[in-house]
Amino acid sequence: MLKLDERKQTESVRGALALRPLIETEVDAAWDRGIKNICWLGIGGTWASCLQAVTHMKERSSLEVFSANAAEYVATGDRRIGEGTFMVISSVTGSTTEVIDAVYKARGAGAYVLGFIDKEDSPLASLVDSRITYPANEQLKFFMAADRFLYHEGVMPEYEDMYAQFDEYLPEALVEAEKAADDFGESFARSHMDDKLHYFVGAGTLYGATYSYGMCYWEEMHWMRTKSIHSAEFFHGMLEIVDEDTPVTVFIGEDSQRALGERVARFLEAHSKNYTVIDTKDYTLPGIDEMYRPAVSHLVMHAVTNRIDAHLEELTGHDMTVRRFYRKVDY
Amino acid sequence: MLKLDERKQTESVRGALALRPLIETEVDAAWDRGIKNICWLGIGGTWASCLQAVTHMKERSSLEVFSANAAEYVATGDRRIGEGTFMVISSVTGSTTEVIDAVYKARGAGAYVLGFIDKEDSPLASLVDSRITYPANEQLKFFMAADRFLYHEGVMPEYEDMYAQFDEYLPEALVEAEKAADDFGESFARSHMDDKLHYFVGAGTLYGATYSYGMCYWEEMHWMRTKSIHSAEFFHGMLEIVDEDTPVTVFIGEDSQRALGERVARFLEAHSKNYTVIDTKDYTLPGIDEMYRPAVSHLVMHAVTNRIDAHLEELTGHDMTVRRFYRKVDY
Repeated sequence: MLKLDERKQTESVRGALALRPLIETEVDAAWDRGIKNICWLGIGGTWASCLQAVTHMKERSSLEVFSANAAEYVATGDRRIGEGTFMVISSVTGSTTEVIDAVYKARGAGAYVLGFIDKEDSPLASLVDSRITYPANEQLKFFMAADRFLYHEGVMPEYEDMYAQFDEYLPEALVEAEKAADDFGESFARSHMDDKLHYFVGAGTLYGATYSYGMCYWEEMHWMRTKSIHSAEFFHGMLEIVDEDTPVTVFIGEDSQRALGERVARFLEAHSKNYTVIDTKDYTLPGIDEMYRPAVSHLVMHAVTNRIDAHLEELTGHDMTVRRFYRKVDY
Repeated sequence: MLKLDERKQTESVRGALALRPLIETEVDAAWDRGIKNICWLGIGGTWASCLQAVTHMKERSSLEVFSANAAEYVATGDRRIGEGTFMVISSVTGSTTEVIDAVYKARGAGAYVLGFIDKEDSPLASLVDSRITYPANEQLKFFMAADRFLYHEGVMPEYEDMYAQFDEYLPEALVEAEKAADDFGESFARSHMDDKLHYFVGAGTLYGATYSYGMCYWEEMHWMRTKSIHSAEFFHGMLEIVDEDTPVTVFIGEDSQRALGERVARFLEAHSKNYTVIDTKDYTLPGIDEMYRPAVSHLVMHAVTNRIDAHLEELTGHDMTVRRFYRKVDY
């Protein structure tokens, strides 16, 4: 299948899941020390992943959990970040300047910083209090850390059972989802490769996916224009400029905000002729119980959008790795 | 001047400022009771105002302050909202269904809800713990409440002096800003009335303005397509699809995140031929000290965008009060 190395992909996820003992050691130690709050800090795509982790934790947690945009934190500060703050960051390159500055500031204020840094020999790798080095799978790493906190808080009694299933079945289940989504991905890419503007709408743990898919994939990698909006917000502005032929795609997951996306889908069914619903429920995840699916909706959605990306790149001939500006010119 | 009744506008702001004793009574009582956290709750435009209030408070406060989207809160809940939560909402109609459901839920969880409800005889007016009824000026009402908390926290020693200036000079200063912005507003409206897509970028207390100006004004009222993005995030995706002729407008205010907007402006200066910077610093606010200007940047920006709106409506002939869907069809 186009740009899908099944074995490599399965091993990548399996390796990420195998980080769990390392993550548990980190979170367990933080729990024992005592924490005042948990801050997920990022920028761009990593910030989007932070939004997902926060939404996921808020489903159950009464801990003070929040996200911070690295550049905003550096500019404005945040007096909640300090002694007792457990901060989580992630970086592929380990060299994002806004995050470096933010981590420096947060540590100066007394926060403890755990970094998922893909590259061992990088500025961020040596700046964080502790790091876990493994490529890709950012969202999975974040959710493993989040879930360990939920476990300690006593609001995730299924932790062991759920991860036993994920360890055994998730790597293959996600690859199967990619394969199942391939025809859709090609047809979607073909229908929308010339869109002048495409709207993405999503909610819950998929809002971050909606935001980053529009901005980090279509805008940054495909050079295609998008607007992304939360499903809840769709009805407070965007609905008025949806014409019959406006391309809109709704991401629907299986967490508590599923109904917000379904509402958008119903509206579009009545008023649009150019909309798409991507519903994670349409993808079977063999071996994974119904009740554990909400915790991986965002990974299923990523599997589906991977297929769109592969075909878009093939059809447009636009290499997703090319940048005009990002890390190429000074600004 | 086109659609500007100077006296009416001045009196509207003066009347809003005169609510301050009522707001102080509310906040003082909450402070005496003791608060665990402060939650600004809204949806659409009111949620955007919540984001502004939170950013403003974070400049100085170490209280737990956060915003909540009404529909998300209803769907997912938030265990931080409960006994000891001081919640602030605002509603023009007093009948926004998502907010009604959210207030009902929050009060059920033990939160105390202060409502700025423009319409006395409305569902929300009778649902909140206490209400302050006065039309328009939502952002000013929110900031007065926020600032009273900062005053009690001991991080706004200038509170009395600053509001003495606002009481005396702000109403006229904002009208003068509108008048000063009129030529710009007309020329901007003329240049961009046919834009297929317009990008708005902003940071700090103006990010909410950026978001709501794109969504609630251009999309909902003018039926024109926009994307709005935080200045910090511009460099993590959007920059790649900015061609020379892509219409981009940067909102720059005078708070701690000013530099984030200036960075975007510098980038656009180098790479774009179709960008506009609206900088609140360009507007004199007679009688208001330099040091107090950051606290009203968002109101200055609103004064400027009012002029764009007035001319856009005139030039396009599209009545801003017409809706196709919002509150007109079921969804």
